[in-house]
Amino acid sequence: MAEKNFDIAVIGGGPAGLSAVLTGGIRNKKIGLFEHLDFSQKLQKAHLVDNYPGLPQITGKGMMQQFSAHALSHGAVLVKEKVVNVFPADDGFTLLTPSDTYEAKAVILATGVVSTLLFQGEKEFLGRGVSYCATCDGMFYKDKDVAVISYTAEGEQEAGYLGELCRQVYYLPQYQGNFTPERSNIKVMQTKPRVIQGDTQVDSLATDGETLKVNGVFILRESDPVENILPGLELEGEVIKVKRDMSTNIPGVFAAGDCTGRPWQIAKSTGEGLVAVLSAISYLEGKAKPTGK
Amino acid sequence: MAEKNFDIAVIGGGPAGLSAVLTGGIRNKKIGLFEHLDFSQKLQKAHLVDNYPGLPQITGKGMMQQFSAHALSHGAVLVKEKVVNVFPADDGFTLLTPSDTYEAKAVILATGVVSTLLFQGEKEFLGRGVSYCATCDGMFYKDKDVAVISYTAEGEQEAGYLGELCRQVYYLPQYQGNFTPERSNIKVMQTKPRVIQGDTQVDSLATDGETLKVNGVFILRESDPVENILPGLELEGEVIKVKRDMSTNIPGVFAAGDCTGRPWQIAKSTGEGLVAVLSAISYLEGKAKPTGK
Repeated sequence: MAEKNFDIAVIGGGPAGLSAVLTGGIRNKKIGLFEHLDFSQKLQKAHLVDNYPGLPQITGKGMMQQFSAHALSHGAVLVKEKVVNVFPADDGFTLLTPSDTYEAKAVILATGVVSTLLFQGEKEFLGRGVSYCATCDGMFYKDKDVAVISYTAEGEQEAGYLGELCRQVYYLPQYQGNFTPERSNIKVMQTKPRVIQGDTQVDSLATDGETLKVNGVFILRESDPVENILPGLELEGEVIKVKRDMSTNIPGVFAAGDCTGRPWQIAKSTGEGLVAVLSAISYLEGKAKPTGK
Repeated sequence: MAEKNFDIAVIGGGPAGLSAVLTGGIRNKKIGLFEHLDFSQKLQKAHLVDNYPGLPQITGKGMMQQFSAHALSHGAVLVKEKVVNVFPADDGFTLLTPSDTYEAKAVILATGVVSTLLFQGEKEFLGRGVSYCATCDGMFYKDKDVAVISYTAEGEQEAGYLGELCRQVYYLPQYQGNFTPERSNIKVMQTKPRVIQGDTQVDSLATDGETLKVNGVFILRESDPVENILPGLELEGEVIKVKRDMSTNIPGVFAAGDCTGRPWQIAKSTGEGLVAVLSAISYLEGKAKPTGK
């Protein structure tokens, strides 16, 4: 059976997450690395990186290959699923993915930058018509009309699933691609979404073209706005607020890499990943003591 | 003529300093790297390092060779002198070494951990009998008696110079070595120094053996207590207090690596070095604007 209980769950497999996984593995912790894409898409697109000490003039792709091979050589479990929700549980946290649940005593957020701004209405209607996970929330929209705004081709599968449940699915791809749905009730629309509207619940999505009458809007990004994955997480502007030990305002939750702010650079990310996992280990050791820390 | 004016002076050539030098060089800044020993002695002694992402199972020595070659490939000037004092100047800072002075618009402290505790009386009598630099302060002790507490063989040369000036020099080596002075007024003593004593000025040094009547005590460590190099620098316990952008309480002075606190790990140091140099560059750009901030 696949491992579902971890000491530390690391969300995101870019340089920050992989650095945390590496040192956590060496320190003999049970680490789950949640990475649903093929490691950092952003870094893989980098033509040439020359300011990571020790690896002169390396391609982004080559660097990610070296980092991931190195990090995963110490026993971490790679979970190729997207974490859509993290909530407090008895002895730590429960992590929800579209297909499963996992437990972890501590969590490291290494989700990268979400450079997209939120849509107007997105935050307001979250849980009242706005969702980040078709598998999780699709049933609420049975026989209703929904829109799917997707930034990755993964969204095509989710749209297919919603097509089975819902009356009408509007699919708004925000990536380069060529999606021809099999089902006739899925309509692909090449338009930019603008405002999510409604009274107490979503009733429409305004776009650059027509306004779509829908009961639900699914937004599928490479990574979700982290404050929505983990309610109560304190931000500073658009980044996660951290102390020098990479702890956040939520005990047991740490953050590292681009999601904690600029500069968006590899050495900064690997350094923070290292500090985060050592802080998480200290946190676990403090909890393990009967008299606490 | 050797370069003596820098945009940024980086003090210390361990992983933090080298990372700062690397990115600073790539960003076309005039960087001076002050490293008087052979790069990080501490890291070079590390048998095997396996938690720096991308360089699995590397020796400390091998890593320092890769780091220093990489960092110095972008035009930084290596100054093999020890910085004994940094003080504010017209347009930045003046750096004093035993043999010369340098100017820099911004300074990055990457001096590593000084694991030695200060001697009792050291802080109290600094500038009133306690000195970190024979070349700088030797003349004040002409025809007087001094003690030299040295943690590196470099101190032997300084003792030789003091021997020319002073009446009696007691040399207390705190390292493995075999120093046979040429001058008869230099006495090597295998003993541990304990307390620097005096009224308003130093008058003696208590050791595990006898108490030495001296007017001056020269303390020569691998790196000096950083708050003594740069008066007014705010500490937090025994480490330099920094913000998330690695700025210190002194505008234009940044810090990175072990000197900012635990964990004492390579990835943490390289990350901080990168952040420090980018913050220093922003600081310089802010100053360059006529309306500057």
